Amino acid sequence: MAARGMAAEAWHKGRPASPGLVAGPLFVARPMRRGVGVAGSPADEAAKLRGAIAHAMAAIEKLQATASDDAAEILEFQVAMLGDEALAEGAFAAIAEGTAADAAWTAALDVQIAEYAEAADEYFRARASDLSDIRDSVLEHLLGGGSDLPPAGAIYLGEDMLPSRFLSCDWSAGGGIALTGGSPSSHVAMLARARGVPMVVGLKLDLGAQNNASAALLDGEGGRINLAPSAEATLAFQGDVAKASTEAARWEQYLRQAAKTADGERVLTQINVAAPAELDHLDPAICDGIGLVRTEFLFHDQPSLPDEASQFAVYQRIVRWAAGRPVTIRTLDAGGDKPIAGLSMEAESNPFLGLRGIRLSLAYPDIFRVQLRALARAAVAGPLKVMLPMVTVPDEITATAALLDDEVVKLQAAGIPCRRPDLGIMVEVPATALAIERYPAAFFSIGSNDLTQYVTASARDIASVAGLNDTANPAVLRLIGEVAGYGRRAGIDVSLCGDAGGDARLLPLLLNAGVRNVSMAPKMLARAKSVIANWRPS
Amino acid sequence: MAARGMAAEAWHKGRPASPGLVAGPLFVARPMRRGVGVAGSPADEAAKLRGAIAHAMAAIEKLQATASDDAAEILEFQVAMLGDEALAEGAFAAIAEGTAADAAWTAALDVQIAEYAEAADEYFRARASDLSDIRDSVLEHLLGGGSDLPPAGAIYLGEDMLPSRFLSCDWSAGGGIALTGGSPSSHVAMLARARGVPMVVGLKLDLGAQNNASAALLDGEGGRINLAPSAEATLAFQGDVAKASTEAARWEQYLRQAAKTADGERVLTQINVAAPAELDHLDPAICDGIGLVRTEFLFHDQPSLPDEASQFAVYQRIVRWAAGRPVTIRTLDAGGDKPIAGLSMEAESNPFLGLRGIRLSLAYPDIFRVQLRALARAAVAGPLKVMLPMVTVPDEITATAALLDDEVVKLQAAGIPCRRPDLGIMVEVPATALAIERYPAAFFSIGSNDLTQYVTASARDIASVAGLNDTANPAVLRLIGEVAGYGRRAGIDVSLCGDAGGDARLLPLLLNAGVRNVSMAPKMLARAKSVIANWRPS
Repeated sequence: MAARGMAAEAWHKGRPASPGLVAGPLFVARPMRRGVGVAGSPADEAAKLRGAIAHAMAAIEKLQATASDDAAEILEFQVAMLGDEALAEGAFAAIAEGTAADAAWTAALDVQIAEYAEAADEYFRARASDLSDIRDSVLEHLLGGGSDLPPAGAIYLGEDMLPSRFLSCDWSAGGGIALTGGSPSSHVAMLARARGVPMVVGLKLDLGAQNNASAALLDGEGGRINLAPSAEATLAFQGDVAKASTEAARWEQYLRQAAKTADGERVLTQINVAAPAELDHLDPAICDGIGLVRTEFLFHDQPSLPDEASQFAVYQRIVRWAAGRPVTIRTLDAGGDKPIAGLSMEAESNPFLGLRGIRLSLAYPDIFRVQLRALARAAVAGPLKVMLPMVTVPDEITATAALLDDEVVKLQAAGIPCRRPDLGIMVEVPATALAIERYPAAFFSIGSNDLTQYVTASARDIASVAGLNDTANPAVLRLIGEVAGYGRRAGIDVSLCGDAGGDARLLPLLLNAGVRNVSMAPKMLARAKSVIANWRPS
Repeated sequence: MAARGMAAEAWHKGRPASPGLVAGPLFVARPMRRGVGVAGSPADEAAKLRGAIAHAMAAIEKLQATASDDAAEILEFQVAMLGDEALAEGAFAAIAEGTAADAAWTAALDVQIAEYAEAADEYFRARASDLSDIRDSVLEHLLGGGSDLPPAGAIYLGEDMLPSRFLSCDWSAGGGIALTGGSPSSHVAMLARARGVPMVVGLKLDLGAQNNASAALLDGEGGRINLAPSAEATLAFQGDVAKASTEAARWEQYLRQAAKTADGERVLTQINVAAPAELDHLDPAICDGIGLVRTEFLFHDQPSLPDEASQFAVYQRIVRWAAGRPVTIRTLDAGGDKPIAGLSMEAESNPFLGLRGIRLSLAYPDIFRVQLRALARAAVAGPLKVMLPMVTVPDEITATAALLDDEVVKLQAAGIPCRRPDLGIMVEVPATALAIERYPAAFFSIGSNDLTQYVTASARDIASVAGLNDTANPAVLRLIGEVAGYGRRAGIDVSLCGDAGGDARLLPLLLNAGVRNVSMAPKMLARAKSVIANWRPS
């Protein structure tokens, strides 16, 4: 949402992490006081550190008891980290050599935080924030005295925000988050999006030069903040806020209706799910099914790869949630850019063009078979479909079908209930879109994010080429139209499950190209349905 | 060339670095004896090192005097490195603290070699080999006694081979190179290809377990070596050698003829040039022009970016060599994967999808303008054309044309002779191939290497996806056919300048797709013309 009529120079630009507009008092978070404690005996210092860790764990567990599912998962991760003896190993070693507990703990954690912060993968970089949270929670108990919480309704401005701090804040009166560090993939950003708290990260600001102020403007969608707005800017912003609120209310009316174009043509609208906990607060009636269940969450933060039983349980839970609606589960889409514990992968010079998706699964057939077995078992519970990512040649489908058939036969022989699910593919590699008639798949799902990235040869995570990475590029739309047209003629379902499906600018272009089945983040559904309702073939 | 009838287990597999088949005695190069010298006084040791460096420089300069142009360039690079005081700084510092000259020198160089060896970019990794050469040349002078040279006709087996060692060897009686380390992009590999010496790198062999032997078989095209061939294997290999030699002689007959299909249709065959020195031994009559002059060589190994005068001189020299034939010069195709001194580039997670080619040039317009001016001046000397790499959107052409027109006007105003060259583009980004009619270019040149890489989402430098990176993929051929067809209908020249043009398996597929203008490494011309002569539309 563009904020009209504001002097450009008053705005500081960062990266959007959670959408929404908010005006409110500015709360500047000061960096935490670092310990310069005098060391007692090594035994005393070690006991102090052990006590502080125990207290920090207890405090997090207390928060956890009242937290919602997704927050509880994040806190569980922190409890697990705190419980891991390796975490504090370096600190205890330094204490044994005479270092004070607070200095030893800070130094030991800072090394690990720096390692995460330098990871090439955004997922791991984002974990640096959890470790900072753990570091500071323990430090608070070591040094006494916590840090202040922002008042209700305030815009928090700091280097980073800790998930536990986020959960301790009162967001009921609004408020927002503006960070000079941070990442849109961090746990706190996930929480902010789930709670509807506007958030901007990566601001280029000198924090030391900022002071609490009576009013600031935060534009979560535009990724920017105004720390000293003029009266005109504030007025214009308030107008935008009012307009956005009216629009959101209008969109909300569409949420529980089946999506139809202005001419009454039905468009299927499904949701993308990255973690099962996302479903807890959702009513399945708002969607026509789940168009994409990512399964990478199963493999992250795990000391070992998940076994068949735990995968089965999760898949079954998702299928049951959908209550008879189709559920499309994508097999593991890991790779050099999304590393997974237990799959040893070489560092690749260009991981987006490397061993990822179905390529990686077929390289580790024993691990792949476990996932296929769990999927075939969960398929008994409802209309589960299996989708393969990054398919480039037809052989990849044939090879997977052989593995799946083999596991189904084995399950049947063992008397374990199962059903052979339909096997479809993501269409995200240009080669596949360009010769779609060669691919023996039960359904196609266009992955517009990756397809755009490859067709324009512009990575979505490289800022300097962000302008070229555009799904509205005529070449991308041509390919999408060709795949949709082929599906219609051949009687094969075609959906689209990239960000474009929930984008008000791009969705009309997709409908023009013939797409009639889109899958998107649940938050996008209401607005997308309203866009569809107003669309007419041009 | 597949070697028939050999037991697979007798062959060790590596990476091809220079094609050709050779049978000959095996010469195993032992790692150099490392100094364990007792240190004299710091002043003595420093003087010893200074003397050894001077001797090594003199020896390389002597080799240089009799070397051909390309070898002389490599040696010049080594002389420049040796003359750089920063190179030995660390060694002199260690000597001042009591280390012996040989140990200090080895340690200082090893650090720098390790840094190059770990570079993400193959170009910089390959420079590690030059530094090893420098290290060992100086060590030989410090410790006395050199290392043995392989006898004429032998297959050299070692960890790596130094360019100076290569140039000291007698290759007149044949011979080959097999390395456990090395790289196809190293200087010694470039030399081997230029001299026609078969070479394989990256062999997984325990060098310590190998001994000189009377006979080994090296297959440079297959990237493999047989260290203990059976009689049958040797016989079959000799058959292959004889066949290859007959074939090569047959191909050679076509070299000086204009390429024509079996039906008499003319196919233009041009050459790719990566460094002007390559032209020294070539007769322009063998080709219809230069389809691709890479200009990255201008920017490598340079302390600063080249000025307009030196660029102009090189471009003019190339145009004059071509003697009236068209010369297509590509503007700088650098990027995160091909870094250039003076252009500060951020490390990118996926450099092949990042700021490269025309994207980078337009990001540094001042540097780009220098290249465009030099090209406009050289265009006076003959039919020079300018080609832009990595074009993704039509605006990139428009923006470049504006810069070029502006520089031409300025040159004219200054009374400097110039001509506005035709501006064409590489078609290597799928978006461009898919909507080719939108791109206002004077000519198109299909870059089959990059196009294949993006269409199949498989990097050419990631071994685990090498099987997917195939220009014969129907989708790649479809795009090539569409571009060729559009060019024919619209009257716009279309050529193809990737490796596929010189590949006997792929060339017939390109001709089937409608390509009638191919550009390739000069070495490939004879064989390609023979393939064309035997091709008939299918």
